[in-house]
Amino acid sequence: MQKIFITVLLLLTLSLQATDALPSWNEGTSKQSIINYVTAATKERTADFIPVKDRIVVFDNDGTLWSERPVYFQLYFAMDRVKALASEHPEWKTTEPFKSVLENDMNGVMKSGEHGLVQIVNATHSGMDNESFKTIVKEWLKTAKHPTSQRAYSELIYQPMMELITYLNMNDFKVYIVSGGGIDFMRSFIPEVYGIPEEHIIGSSGKVHYKDGQIIKDPAINYNNDKEAKPIAIYYAIGKHPVAAFGNSDGDFAMMLYTEANKKHKTLQLYVHHTDEKREWAYDRKSHIGKLDKGLDYGKEHNWTIMDMKNDWKVIYPFELNKKD
Amino acid sequence: MQKIFITVLLLLTLSLQATDALPSWNEGTSKQSIINYVTAATKERTADFIPVKDRIVVFDNDGTLWSERPVYFQLYFAMDRVKALASEHPEWKTTEPFKSVLENDMNGVMKSGEHGLVQIVNATHSGMDNESFKTIVKEWLKTAKHPTSQRAYSELIYQPMMELITYLNMNDFKVYIVSGGGIDFMRSFIPEVYGIPEEHIIGSSGKVHYKDGQIIKDPAINYNNDKEAKPIAIYYAIGKHPVAAFGNSDGDFAMMLYTEANKKHKTLQLYVHHTDEKREWAYDRKSHIGKLDKGLDYGKEHNWTIMDMKNDWKVIYPFELNKKD
Repeated sequence: MQKIFITVLLLLTLSLQATDALPSWNEGTSKQSIINYVTAATKERTADFIPVKDRIVVFDNDGTLWSERPVYFQLYFAMDRVKALASEHPEWKTTEPFKSVLENDMNGVMKSGEHGLVQIVNATHSGMDNESFKTIVKEWLKTAKHPTSQRAYSELIYQPMMELITYLNMNDFKVYIVSGGGIDFMRSFIPEVYGIPEEHIIGSSGKVHYKDGQIIKDPAINYNNDKEAKPIAIYYAIGKHPVAAFGNSDGDFAMMLYTEANKKHKTLQLYVHHTDEKREWAYDRKSHIGKLDKGLDYGKEHNWTIMDMKNDWKVIYPFELNKKD
Repeated sequence: MQKIFITVLLLLTLSLQATDALPSWNEGTSKQSIINYVTAATKERTADFIPVKDRIVVFDNDGTLWSERPVYFQLYFAMDRVKALASEHPEWKTTEPFKSVLENDMNGVMKSGEHGLVQIVNATHSGMDNESFKTIVKEWLKTAKHPTSQRAYSELIYQPMMELITYLNMNDFKVYIVSGGGIDFMRSFIPEVYGIPEEHIIGSSGKVHYKDGQIIKDPAINYNNDKEAKPIAIYYAIGKHPVAAFGNSDGDFAMMLYTEANKKHKTLQLYVHHTDEKREWAYDRKSHIGKLDKGLDYGKEHNWTIMDMKNDWKVIYPFELNKKD
């Protein structure tokens, strides 16, 4: 048994040295900056070597690891839950923002603003223990379809970023998700779909209480993990500056600045820039979702890697790989 | 290089199979319950096997991994900080609880109650970034002496529990600290002294804000990680029920019940019972610090492992090993 394991390990190591760890990335400065960084960080007895214990890297999720258009996928889940629960809440037929949800009026939903979205989340993400909630999300993900592509949401993950996560894991980096998405929502699919364990997922959360061995989700926001809240959440959960940060919006800017401020180690900041309106979406400075403005300027001035989805990625989604066969 | 690594790995595996992983534990039901549990959890294709991803275990710190008498060691740190900062705060000479601290009047400090302790913590654990704070704690630990034993605080860790942590790590359990101690205080010594990384330390915390790439500690409590707050903290940080929990007081009781309520896997709960007034301290039901009353009754009735420090441990502290040479 041990011999087999060791042989496999050896073969894997040798084959990785020989093959391209990022096959869905086109050759170019983005890919090269990643490879240069990882190569330097793992080369012992050189200036940029990073001890394994400090190899902490953070990824945003929405728009960085999977798509976030037309709106965050978690909102589609919440809206479907409103519809599923509507028979228990006859008053929703005449009360905003629920009325708009039930009438499939996305403009009406968005008009309800942050207050309306919080109401929808509170009504659909509470009243049960966290394990039951995750089961509901898992069931939903099995059948729910993205409104424009008609794909399962878990198909709309970025193949090049999955390769990047594997590449970092193989080089002993600990990969954390630091997202504005809800922790239980993310924990219901990320371990299986991205291979990142539940305990490496940092997100927004609701209030909870403890009862009879279970965690019960209450209808109130506990933590909104966006902007400056991201480095603070990293501090509470991890306790130190990451060495690399990957994001796509101004919501990730503070987390990337926090990473850049690491005094011990060379760092890497990478922005996924949505430039491909044909294969995905193109948006940045003026977008309501995933707005990238301040971070784009700063990143360009400070030698951050501004990845260009259109030119840097051979494929966007994993299902495109099959097409090419 | 790879060959050397693999040879070392093989030798390690073989030697571990042959030797006692818990040499400072006397033979008996406590030691046997641990070994039986770990053996069953790691035996593939048997009923009690636990997949590696679910091998999450949680340890309290004060009184479970190091001593907590006469009072929590962090309080000695805070009191020494009050003395170090006193010249900047002339008003402390006449204001409680600082007056009692400056006069070395521990009774006066304790009389100030929770409100007084919070004042002391807020005044001494804020006003700087978290890295600077950890440096202060590290410097303090180098010279500070425990009041009755005159030992460095980092010497007052439990050798048998350090062996237990190593044993669990070797068997692919992820070990987390879930303690009422402050996260930055713990993160300043636990990685080095116990070998547990900063990102596996869950504790009480103060409020912070983000500024210019740094986390600044504010003079206010954010989270008091005790009793029912412990399973809630585990939920936020880890997202699922642990499979084993180790504590010593009623403050750990909810965390142990939460572990026991794991529906997927067989669990282990172990209480460190302080029964050795000669080598350490003896206390339980009536103690102000580390009170163990409800948990003791429940644990006895529910087949938990109630470890007996006096009879189960050959040595308490690592320095006793040297004595024996």
